[in-house]
Parts: sequence; structure tokens; C-alpha cells
Amino acid sequence: MSEEHLEALGAAGSDAAASEARAARAASIDARLLRRLLDALGRPPVRVDLWNGESLATRDATPATIRIHTRAALYGLLLNPELHFGDAYADGTVSVEGDLVQLLEDAYRVMPRGSSGLLRRVSGWLNGERRNTPAGSRRNIHRHYDLGNDFYRLWLDRDMLYTCAYFSTRAATLEEAQTAKLEHVCRKIRLRAGETVYEAGCGWGAFALYAAQRHGAKVRAFNISREQVAFARERAKSLGLEGRVEFIEDDYRSMSGRCDAFVSIGMLEHVGREHYRELGAVIDRCLERDGRGLVHSIGRDRAEALNAWIGKRIFPGAYPPSLREMMDIFEPAGLSVLDVENLRLHYALTLRHWLERFEAARERVRAMYDERFVRTWRLYLAGSIAAFNAGALQLFQVVFNRSGENDVPWTREHLYPPTAR
Amino acid sequence: MSEEHLEALGAAGSDAAASEARAARAASIDARLLRRLLDALGRPPVRVDLWNGESLATRDATPATIRIHTRAALYGLLLNPELHFGDAYADGTVSVEGDLVQLLEDAYRVMPRGSSGLLRRVSGWLNGERRNTPAGSRRNIHRHYDLGNDFYRLWLDRDMLYTCAYFSTRAATLEEAQTAKLEHVCRKIRLRAGETVYEAGCGWGAFALYAAQRHGAKVRAFNISREQVAFARERAKSLGLEGRVEFIEDDYRSMSGRCDAFVSIGMLEHVGREHYRELGAVIDRCLERDGRGLVHSIGRDRAEALNAWIGKRIFPGAYPPSLREMMDIFEPAGLSVLDVENLRLHYALTLRHWLERFEAARERVRAMYDERFVRTWRLYLAGSIAAFNAGALQLFQVVFNRSGENDVPWTREHLYPPTAR
Repeated sequence: MSEEHLEALGAAGSDAAASEARAARAASIDARLLRRLLDALGRPPVRVDLWNGESLATRDATPATIRIHTRAALYGLLLNPELHFGDAYADGTVSVEGDLVQLLEDAYRVMPRGSSGLLRRVSGWLNGERRNTPAGSRRNIHRHYDLGNDFYRLWLDRDMLYTCAYFSTRAATLEEAQTAKLEHVCRKIRLRAGETVYEAGCGWGAFALYAAQRHGAKVRAFNISREQVAFARERAKSLGLEGRVEFIEDDYRSMSGRCDAFVSIGMLEHVGREHYRELGAVIDRCLERDGRGLVHSIGRDRAEALNAWIGKRIFPGAYPPSLREMMDIFEPAGLSVLDVENLRLHYALTLRHWLERFEAARERVRAMYDERFVRTWRLYLAGSIAAFNAGALQLFQVVFNRSGENDVPWTREHLYPPTAR
Repeated sequence: MSEEHLEALGAAGSDAAASEARAARAASIDARLLRRLLDALGRPPVRVDLWNGESLATRDATPATIRIHTRAALYGLLLNPELHFGDAYADGTVSVEGDLVQLLEDAYRVMPRGSSGLLRRVSGWLNGERRNTPAGSRRNIHRHYDLGNDFYRLWLDRDMLYTCAYFSTRAATLEEAQTAKLEHVCRKIRLRAGETVYEAGCGWGAFALYAAQRHGAKVRAFNISREQVAFARERAKSLGLEGRVEFIEDDYRSMSGRCDAFVSIGMLEHVGREHYRELGAVIDRCLERDGRGLVHSIGRDRAEALNAWIGKRIFPGAYPPSLREMMDIFEPAGLSVLDVENLRLHYALTLRHWLERFEAARERVRAMYDERFVRTWRLYLAGSIAAFNAGALQLFQVVFNRSGENDVPWTREHLYPPTAR
């Protein structure tokens, strides 16, 4: 792709080849700034139409066209594309025609990545990163997870699992894949009837209820989202599991007593990297000598700041760690990593199911909130599919026990019983 | 265990209870120093007999008795127990009656662990840690692996695999478990016929030959041990695999060209942590876009210096890294960790087989070398069993590909085909 071609589309309004060529040479300052922006972003395959009729394209054929409807929107993108693309898409001053997910995946694949530690910290601070103290965590979690159970019910599975599912085949339904995930986790921690499980960050309670109902475990599940805990308690009651599952509206840092297994599915993203040692100390305090544990979390191949828009509009205070960063949980606490599984593509597929259901319910979402909300959530879900597909995000399941404890399975075959195939 | 009991055995030579009690109170300075040493080591369950007839025990029943035959040996232990226990055991000024492996495992379990980064560096320097430059590596590797193929043939398996085996059941033979390891690795990298494999550090060639013979791969295998390469080339010739397997007597840093799979089994221990980025750069340079890789290495739950005696007498320049430290290979090179399996207990069992065969062949070993050599190797093998059993050492198999490459298996079921059970 030559530089010339970037300008070749010229003013879309002109109708003669000669005047097109003239217009290309006389591209407006706005178009030239846009060209620089596309260069800086690594030239993802895209066509961009400006409000003034000008167009740029980085390829002949592109999966999508971005329309920038105002000069203010373009200048926002120039200032901070990561942050302002989302905001402009949400308020409609930027729109996308074509395949939004593919556009974002292509962008993730070419964009320069991997900011330094300092940049990460500054960007977190500029974007109003919220500290995950117990009070800060409560605010951060409330903002996302207390949007209303009715909203999440519109597009999550039957059991309201809001974490990566496990598709034993790509063709599995979302419901099958979420149940398979719960079973995969129970097998990984080798859960036995009568054992006590502590769960840190339990969402709407699906894992806790499954572990109790299917495996006879006693579960103490912690969560600081009021709406989620209320829902989970209702479900425990309706399933007659109140005696076996306790949902506790409290911070993981308040855990006490002892457990045979420690599980955390999709909470680590909200713990904040400065609190990993604290989480490790909680596990060390609570886990029986022969206990097992599993942490399931979004992660990275290498440390990088959270997407600025996601941090501001979707998940304040969130951070997906690299495996190296996750070791701050295990190493100081005397824990031994037994197994790490990367389920990145399972999360992309999970999110595809969610986005599909979300789109099917978008009129109802619009009625509950507004169009801006619909566009915000569409971009968040589509962008997440793209990030997992492009490898900008990973999904790690880490199994651990106490260092030197030898009651571990001889192989991992027990995770794959022939009957389950 | 009270302090009193530590002295209660008194002078073993006295024959009356009263004089024993007196002797206990009047324990020699040597015995008191020994008591301090046992305290500092966390009081492993052991009885120690001194040359002067005095005895100390930390428990009523102990799995082994250590006899210290000279004052010089005791003072060496006081100075640096990790280093001088090995040397004194080797020259016979310290001997052990009872279960040597259990003694060492108990010691590993109670000994204070996890030295700081600075201490690690200083201890490496004091113990003459050898830098793993290409020339330094050659010296370090020559020292251990060029002891003579006849020696290793006495106690390794038929195919001369000198790395952790994979026991699908504890009852598998060493031969079965070593073959199972090769197959496990080939499955993990999803090796297909006609593909090119680069192997860094190929030992006596067993993996390279297996990958070519059983999976139809073309293998370029690098090794700087002259004896091993000579042996491997002979085997390739006798198996008629010369056209498909090339054994190259050169450093992994000299690798060029492109491969579909990169494998390194038991070399990373000798790479040295200051060269992990270099290893990652080699992988990045050679691996095809859709390539897969596996690194199999002894490791740690957290960073710690190599045992001083092992570093001095057995593996100069060696270092078993923590998972965090291993990330220096993958992160800067744009690689994505797909799977980590910890096979620690498999290595303990592998080593048990080796020690058993070694003991059965000890007269021949003594004839080839001398008694000191026999005792050195016995201690090294027994100590390694102990370290893996106690969790002082881990064995990590890390599977990776390039970040964002999506041709990965949907689950890990392919590693556990029902027919293999």
C-alpha cells in the first residue's frame, strides 16, 4: 500500500477523475491529520469517511468503514484515539458500517503494544484509575455489576455466568459451555463431597451453587456487589441449598476460617496489581495444608495498561495481569503452580454469544437505558471479542496448591474422562 | 521437641545413666555447636553421632543417623552446611546410616528457603558460578555431560534420556515413562509429518530421533556436548535417520533458518537467567508464524540460589528458574503461554529409577572412577529425589506460540487420547 493510495479516494463528492486527482493533492488539513493518525495506529485495514465528503482508505478492500461525523470527533481521536473512539462511537459522532468486530481485531493486530511500567502508571492515573481499597473496590464493582440483574438477564446464559465459558467443541451452546466451565473448575480442584470451598468474587452465584448441588461441597462465597448477592441468595433458597451455600456480601480480604479449596473466577481483574500479595496472604491464611486452588482471570502476554476507554467507561480500577504479575499472588504465599491453561479463544466465543443475544435484545436495552448505553455496550462486547481474538487479551486458569504438598493427581487425565467426549 | 532432648543422648560411650546425664550437661563445645547448627537448619528429624562418642538427636525416632567422623568435617558444616555436607559425604568424613533420601527430604522441608536476589547473586559468585557465555557454557556442559557415555549407559534408560520422564501411572517402567514423555511433548507441540523441529540441547538425541521416526519430522538438534553429539549421530546412522535428523555440535545461539516447532527439554537449567531474553530472541528469529514451542525445565516455586554443592560439584553455571523468571524468555519475544504443566513428582520417580540402577552398578562405577565419585553421584541423585519430593524443585513444561496466532487446539483433550489409557 503506497502513500499515494491513502489519498487516492479524494473527495467522494467529485464526479470526474481529473478533479478527484486534484482533490487528492489538495487534501484538507483534516484529511492529512487523519492520515497521520492511521499511520500512528499501524494502518489497520479500514476506510474512513469524513463529514466534509473526504475519504481515506488503507486498502482497496476493507472490512468496515468508519464515518467521522464532526471535526470535534476527529480532533478527539487525534488527542487520544483509544479513549475517544469509544466515546465518539457511543454518542454517534463516529459510526461504523461493516464488520465492527473485524475492524477492531485488525486494529488490535497492528497497533503498537506493550507500554512501559511508567507509562502504564501515568495512563492509569490520567484515566482516573480507581484504587482497589475495600471502599474503592466497592465503588468500582457497584458501577458495573449493579447495573441491574434484569439487564444482564437479557444476554447472559440461564445461570448468569459473566465469565469465560469452556466450549468442549466450538458448536456447544453457551449454556452447555458455561456448565462445562463449572465442571472443568471442579475437576481441576478435585472437589470432593463434604469439602469446604471459599469463593472470592462469586458473581450471581452459579459456581457456588453448582459446587454444592453437583459435588456436595459447602461453599462460602464472597462478593461486594449487592445486586448479585441478593440474586444469588434467592437462587440458593429456591434450590434448597441455603444450608450448604452461604453468600457473604463482603470483600475477599475479610475471609477467615479454613477451606479445602479456594476458587476465584473472574475477580482478579478487579483486585488491582498492588493487591496481589494481599490476595495471596488471604489464600495462605485460609487454605488447609492439603488444599487446592484455582484462579481464573483475564490476562496478558505481557504487562500493558488497560484500554483507556474500558477503564473509564466499563471497568474502573480493572487490570488484566501478565502471568509474571500473577506470580505476586503465589510466590510470596508459598504456593506452587501446578497447571496453567490459556482459554483465550473460549472467551472470544463466549463474547460472541453474548453480543448476539445483546443485539437481539437491544430494543429492550434501549428502553431500559438509552441509545448511548446500547452503543457503549456493543462496542465493549465487540472490542472484547476482538481483543481475545487478536491475542491482546488472554484467559488464564491457574491451579495451585501449597508448595511441597504431594497429594496431587499423577496426570491431568482426570480432567478429560472418556465419558465426557 | 524440647531443648533438653536435643542433649539427652549425651556421650554414647558412657555406660551408666548417671554419667550420661552428667555428660549431657557437660556437652562439649563441638556438640553445642552442632546443636546450634541443627537449630539453624530448622531441626530436621535426625540423629548425629560425633567422632568423640557424643550424640544428638532432634526426635526419638529418626529415619537416619549422620556420623561426623572428624572435627574438621563438623567445622566445615558449621561454615557452610549446604556446600560442605556434600564434600564431607563424598570424602567419607561424614557418613549416613539409614534412609538418605528421607533424611534429605526432611531437611529440605524444614530448611529456611528463598534467598533474596542479592544473596542469590553473592552466593552464585562465592560458589564460583560460571557465566554461560558460549565459551563458558561449553566448559560447564563438558564438565558434566562429557563424563563418558559408558558411565551414563549404566543407569539411564535404553534411549539415554537424562530428563524427567512422564509416568502415566506410577507403575510404568522407566523405559515406558521416557517414551511416554517424548510422545507427550510431540502431542503438546502438535507435531505433524514433514514439519521441521529445532531442538535446543538434545542430550543423546532421543527426542530428535523419536520425532523423526514416529512423527515423520525433520529435526535440527543442537548440543555443545561432544560426547553426546557423537553418540546421537551414531544412533541416527544405525536407525537410518541421517537424512531426517541433523545433530549439530553448536550453541543454541547459533540457530538460524525457520522451524515449525521449537523444543528444548532440560537445557534451560544451563542457559543462565541472564540469557533468557537471548533464548527468546532465538525462538522469535526461528519460529514460523504459526509455529509452536515447548520448554521443559527444572524450576522453582520462587527464585532461589542453586544448591551450592550442586553448583560446585555437579552442575556449574546451572540455575532452575521460577515461572516468573522464565517469562523473560516469552514476554519480550512476543510469545504467548498456552499451557504449563508441573511434573515435579514425575522427576522424583524418574530419579528413584536412576538411583536404583546406579546403586546396582556402583561396583562398575567405582572401577571406572573412584569411591569419592560414587558417593558424590549417590548424594546428587538422592538429594534430587528429596528436592523434588519436598517441593524445593519443580519441573515445568511450558507450551507456547506466537501472541495472537489462533491455530491452537480447542481443548487439551488431544493429549489424553482414550486409546492411550
